[in-house]
Amino acid sequence: MSNSSNDENFKDKKVNIVMFSGEYDKALAGLIMANSARELGAQVTMFFTFWGLLLLRDPDKLSLEDKTTYEKMFSMMTPNGIEDLPLSKMNFAGIGKKMLKEMMKDDEAPSLTKFLNGARKKGVKFYGCKLAVDVMGFKKEEFIPELEIVDAKEYLKDALNSDMQLFI
Amino acid sequence: MSNSSNDENFKDKKVNIVMFSGEYDKALAGLIMANSARELGAQVTMFFTFWGLLLLRDPDKLSLEDKTTYEKMFSMMTPNGIEDLPLSKMNFAGIGKKMLKEMMKDDEAPSLTKFLNGARKKGVKFYGCKLAVDVMGFKKEEFIPELEIVDAKEYLKDALNSDMQLFI
Amino acid sequence: MSNSSNDENFKDKKVNIVMFSGEYDKALAGLIMANSARELGAQVTMFFTFWGLLLLRDPDKLSLEDKTTYEKMFSMMTPNGIEDLPLSKMNFAGIGKKMLKEMMKDDEAPSLTKFLNGARKKGVKFYGCKLAVDVMGFKKEEFIPELEIVDAKEYLKDALNSDMQLFI
Repeated sequence: MSNSSNDENFKDKKVNIVMFSGEYDKALAGLIMANSARELGAQVTMFFTFWGLLLLRDPDKLSLEDKTTYEKMFSMMTPNGIEDLPLSKMNFAGIGKKMLKEMMKDDEAPSLTKFLNGARKKGVKFYGCKLAVDVMGFKKEEFIPELEIVDAKEYLKDALNSDMQLFI
Repeated sequence: MSNSSNDENFKDKKVNIVMFSGEYDKALAGLIMANSARELGAQVTMFFTFWGLLLLRDPDKLSLEDKTTYEKMFSMMTPNGIEDLPLSKMNFAGIGKKMLKEMMKDDEAPSLTKFLNGARKKGVKFYGCKLAVDVMGFKKEEFIPELEIVDAKEYLKDALNSDMQLFI
Repeated sequence: MSNSSNDENFKDKKVNIVMFSGEYDKALAGLIMANSARELGAQVTMFFTFWGLLLLRDPDKLSLEDKTTYEKMFSMMTPNGIEDLPLSKMNFAGIGKKMLKEMMKDDEAPSLTKFLNGARKKGVKFYGCKLAVDVMGFKKEEFIPELEIVDAKEYLKDALNSDMQLFI
């Protein structure tokens, strides 16, 4: 229940966020929440699966080695890095996305990359879904080094022991 | 844990729903849940961010004043009010949406506007995301008067003190 | 709060998942989580609403009887069964979906149908949203027999008594 005291302590709270969507706007929402939760003192785990894994690939480390034809095609068709993700709507072949980025700059809002790096610096735990990594043919070396590859059960254990869970 | 007594009391329970998507069907889902939760006696907070803010603009109060060029373009390209929102799929340039609305009428299901007004009357708390409002260039006066503009931390405090959280 | 003991018991935990989206990849995510949660010993309820109901129609039992014109059109325009669902992105008129299915086969990942049948066998509780069933004109006989049609309040009672809730 709500406890409206002002000096409330959130150090004992735990947040678990699934990042399923590989879209710029949804990634912003998830990463802003993760940063803010850490600033309140809460522990945060983000579990990246399916398209969400596209947020964590390092554009300088993408590789086509040891991949099947489908995996190679998939790797070439997907965005190279976090700033290349499309919007979930009004993307208009990238025009809407460019517009949003200009509007963010006008308001001096940090870029998505800055929120990702903030989350890394603030100690957010990064989990990646083993099944999705395997099916999509991604290699561990393509991701940011913090990413720990776990199965769905590890995710669930973390989520079931958290105070809030979101699927984004 | 589940407690299956029939006269269970939900007055001490708290629901927190993020409305990120600006789509007719997802807005229906969120607002129906909010209304039902209030009817069970639970407290409800809805946090509107990004496209979700389009649910709460008053079509009679939209304004282009004091907006940058991008903000004006954005304002003109987005739906004017809650009944203008597209479907998340099968929208078919509005035909699918019209079809769904006819099907709802056939079943005497209330319109989205009625569920929104129900939520307002029943005392759902309306939070709007400050960062999204600023970036999109919306003005407080364009929204329904109940909307309180808060930052991500205020949202998280409310969500962490809730018994269930959804991201829609 | 997190309790990191290894032999943790999840038998007292309860998971509630809303399946709103009728997409192959999101259905995979939801059903994999449901299966894994049952394997950990937790109770699981899945509440299917809107497009999510398309996951549970039995392709051999679809019917156009007793339906209005809109309901018939709707029934004909929607996927016939779980394997026909499109991807949430990169579907490319079915090519992306076919590619994902081939990649899953290469990795010996079970099909979506297998995860659905696993959830049925493992005792996941299947709830369907009454309002959505009525509006879309679906008949109870078109669905898998486990599906129990309930209203939003029944869903909320289950969700409010759960330890984690997701909206997919």
